[in-house]
Amino acid sequence: MTTASADIGLVGLEVMGKNLILNMADHGFKVAVHNRSASKVGPFLAENPQSVLGPGGALIGFTEPEDETVRLRKFVDAIKKPRKVILLVKAGEPTDATINKLVPLLEKGDVIIDGGNALYTDTQRREKALNEKGLLFVGSGVSGGEEGARFGPSLMPAGKPEAWATLKPIWEAIAAKVDANTGKPIPGAAPGKPVKGGVPCTTFIGSDGAGHYVKMVHNGIEYGDMQMICEAYALMNQVAGMSPSECSDVFKEWNKGDLDSFLIEITADVLQQKDPVTGKPFVDIVMDAAGQKGTGKWTSVGALDMGVPAPTVAEAVFARFISAIKEERVAASKILKGPAAAGFDATAGKLFKSKQEFVDAVGRALYCSKICSYAQGFQLMAAAGKEYNWGLKFGEIAMIWRGGCIIRAGFLQKIKEAYDKNPKLANLLLDPYFAGTVEKSADAWRRVIAAGSLAGVPMPTLGSALCYFDSYRSERLPANLLQAQRDFFGAHTYERVDQPRGKFFHLDWPAKGRPQEER
Amino acid sequence: MTTASADIGLVGLEVMGKNLILNMADHGFKVAVHNRSASKVGPFLAENPQSVLGPGGALIGFTEPEDETVRLRKFVDAIKKPRKVILLVKAGEPTDATINKLVPLLEKGDVIIDGGNALYTDTQRREKALNEKGLLFVGSGVSGGEEGARFGPSLMPAGKPEAWATLKPIWEAIAAKVDANTGKPIPGAAPGKPVKGGVPCTTFIGSDGAGHYVKMVHNGIEYGDMQMICEAYALMNQVAGMSPSECSDVFKEWNKGDLDSFLIEITADVLQQKDPVTGKPFVDIVMDAAGQKGTGKWTSVGALDMGVPAPTVAEAVFARFISAIKEERVAASKILKGPAAAGFDATAGKLFKSKQEFVDAVGRALYCSKICSYAQGFQLMAAAGKEYNWGLKFGEIAMIWRGGCIIRAGFLQKIKEAYDKNPKLANLLLDPYFAGTVEKSADAWRRVIAAGSLAGVPMPTLGSALCYFDSYRSERLPANLLQAQRDFFGAHTYERVDQPRGKFFHLDWPAKGRPQEER
Repeated sequence: MTTASADIGLVGLEVMGKNLILNMADHGFKVAVHNRSASKVGPFLAENPQSVLGPGGALIGFTEPEDETVRLRKFVDAIKKPRKVILLVKAGEPTDATINKLVPLLEKGDVIIDGGNALYTDTQRREKALNEKGLLFVGSGVSGGEEGARFGPSLMPAGKPEAWATLKPIWEAIAAKVDANTGKPIPGAAPGKPVKGGVPCTTFIGSDGAGHYVKMVHNGIEYGDMQMICEAYALMNQVAGMSPSECSDVFKEWNKGDLDSFLIEITADVLQQKDPVTGKPFVDIVMDAAGQKGTGKWTSVGALDMGVPAPTVAEAVFARFISAIKEERVAASKILKGPAAAGFDATAGKLFKSKQEFVDAVGRALYCSKICSYAQGFQLMAAAGKEYNWGLKFGEIAMIWRGGCIIRAGFLQKIKEAYDKNPKLANLLLDPYFAGTVEKSADAWRRVIAAGSLAGVPMPTLGSALCYFDSYRSERLPANLLQAQRDFFGAHTYERVDQPRGKFFHLDWPAKGRPQEER
Repeated sequence: MTTASADIGLVGLEVMGKNLILNMADHGFKVAVHNRSASKVGPFLAENPQSVLGPGGALIGFTEPEDETVRLRKFVDAIKKPRKVILLVKAGEPTDATINKLVPLLEKGDVIIDGGNALYTDTQRREKALNEKGLLFVGSGVSGGEEGARFGPSLMPAGKPEAWATLKPIWEAIAAKVDANTGKPIPGAAPGKPVKGGVPCTTFIGSDGAGHYVKMVHNGIEYGDMQMICEAYALMNQVAGMSPSECSDVFKEWNKGDLDSFLIEITADVLQQKDPVTGKPFVDIVMDAAGQKGTGKWTSVGALDMGVPAPTVAEAVFARFISAIKEERVAASKILKGPAAAGFDATAGKLFKSKQEFVDAVGRALYCSKICSYAQGFQLMAAAGKEYNWGLKFGEIAMIWRGGCIIRAGFLQKIKEAYDKNPKLANLLLDPYFAGTVEKSADAWRRVIAAGSLAGVPMPTLGSALCYFDSYRSERLPANLLQAQRDFFGAHTYERVDQPRGKFFHLDWPAKGRPQEER
């Protein structure tokens, strides 16, 4: 018989699961581990016999017998009550299968925590079903990739407050930490040496699917950030003729200013990297075909479903799709020609005095686009939060994204401050700091889009972000013509500018009565 | 007891249903009509007592008793066997409810035809369920708005070939007709005077949900077309300072060339129209808040699900969303400033010699964007057709869109010819006519996007179409950097340009080992 000595259990020994276990162990928690196939348990325990785990160890796992039900029973029995079991298994059916195996072994008041990238509607369904069985459920976003999981991720938990209360000490201990004054991540964690102090990058997000929804939007924003960086690189590389290494230097500079962020920092690293095989710049040997795991798509579908304009994420997803049809593009490139006039002077040179001015403007375009992309993401969360009554606090969401996660950035401190000042802010773009920043930089941004269009460099996210900005600040859009067209051919009715909203009219179109050839 | 004398039955007396009934009656078919609420049946029969319907009448309907089950029994009994019953009720639950009421009254071999805008997966599910009961089912797209339904729609039927065989004579009779040589719609139909001869705008699309899928993509393309026209109008209006009436003249001219189409034609009419109340240009009194019924959203979600880049439709949908938040935009317009330098000379004047040159270029931009939007739509149909094994024939789809439907256009003849020449065409943009057209016009298109960006006129669809073109013709996209980032932070692996596709590598990033502050 097993003694219940573990503080928490974790199911799923893939990279995220393993790193999260070691992170918890670093913080003094004793962790029971389980994996569907027993063969992964032994090697994992063997790889981590000493260091923080020490003899007698912070980890408990069962490799015998082969039969999973028996091993799972031992695993559950090893956890102190009320039990907390984290799942880090594949989203979708595997998560349901794991829950179904666990439920008969758990007792009233036990808590299952899903740390995978679950679709929020699945989380809503699961929480309801488990609550009806007397179990608690937390759907928690976990962001930061393998490094984040190991030394401090950003954690976005949601569910019942009592479920959060039992999980809170562990989640706050293992989360990334930021400096209380500056909001900057506190680095320096290493195996066995967790960061001490600082503000943890986790907070209770809200009820049922809120945590996974916020994580989904985080990932959508990440898609946007990555694609925008790629477009900035393409502009410098193709319009200004700069090498990967020269571009790296620019990103390093940008990382000292407004654009300071994990993704800009690693972009500088990536562009400096040499290929160990050929010695060429690493990016030059990497195939330009991007993969994806679907959360950017979910965000885009979510925006379409919610009726919220989020074109920048959608464009980033489509950009990955089009990158993936490499062979088709290679064939097309032999048939479809680029601009007649190429080179810096014939394109960007018409709008910028120097390459340096152009490069600076690209940085401005990137920052303005980033602001618009985040504005869209926060609008989307606002709409979903309202729809599902989640009670989201946007300042806190920005706060826990300052460290640990892939989109961590100095700029999130500005978002936190914006929502701290005005929790009911209608759109990030209306905050004085962001409004002022975009106003100062919009002219440079416009010229970058113009130059890239002339030069034939596709900028789906930088361009669509400018369209979002210009649409959002337009008192009047040409949708009047569109609505008139709809009334003409489909009697869909229209509202009038000189009448209250919600009053609908239909015109008996005189042109419609005339035969087509006379019109 | 009722004699079975009707050639076909139709359920649903909303505008589309009524017009389709009158269209069938014009072509000599006797139609039994039914509506859930009896109160609509009497007035409809009374409004159409003579004309084509004549005494003794081409229409049969039952207003008594109130009880729908009894009326529905009479309605079904009035139809000759094998019975054909068209549904024109709301998509979703109301369609299922109507089918459930009909099924017990029908016999093996009877055919239900759903002419509503059903989601194709619903159509797949319904066909399967009805087939299992021995009934046949046709999911048919019906496009053309009320006028199309009355005098000749474009019809996109799918299902079992034997179901189509029974429906074909009626569908071919009532469909719009185009000239066999020119492909142009044959106009001139009027009540009681249907068009004689010509090629009908209907063809068997494929199995199960194919017809509704193709109709969905048609509607997505329509969203794109309408938004692109709005952007062209906004450019002429806001950059070149042209009045609605001046813009109307331009659209009238465009309608004589490559852009010849129903939507351009009615745009010219709409922009010429005066408001009967104020005498002002009609568009100036119409509220700039566009409505929608969801098919553009479905198309965008479909593209995201299928992994096909279709950014132009998605941008058109998002543009409607952003138009709808009118009050927010009005508030934002007081805070967020437009370009410092406004007016034609300071913006477009830098790139065009004259307003006339600019206006011509806007027309070129519109045509190139339209080609890209249709290319995306046909790629989407190709992917879905492959996924579901529908056996779609793209030349025929283009052919039946030449008349009757909202997107009817001279340009569809070119698409038909492109697919006739090469049924395996990888992308519309690669057809010599389209490749040549875009090559000739791309420079003008680029300058339009540049000018609009400088002038602060949002062009989400015209701009995203250019990005699609520039991405599709790019042998190399910056997704290499993106994939390298993914390998850096998430060990997502990468392919190499000097190794075969499908071989994945991971770099042990030296930069990653260094503490953040040193990088």
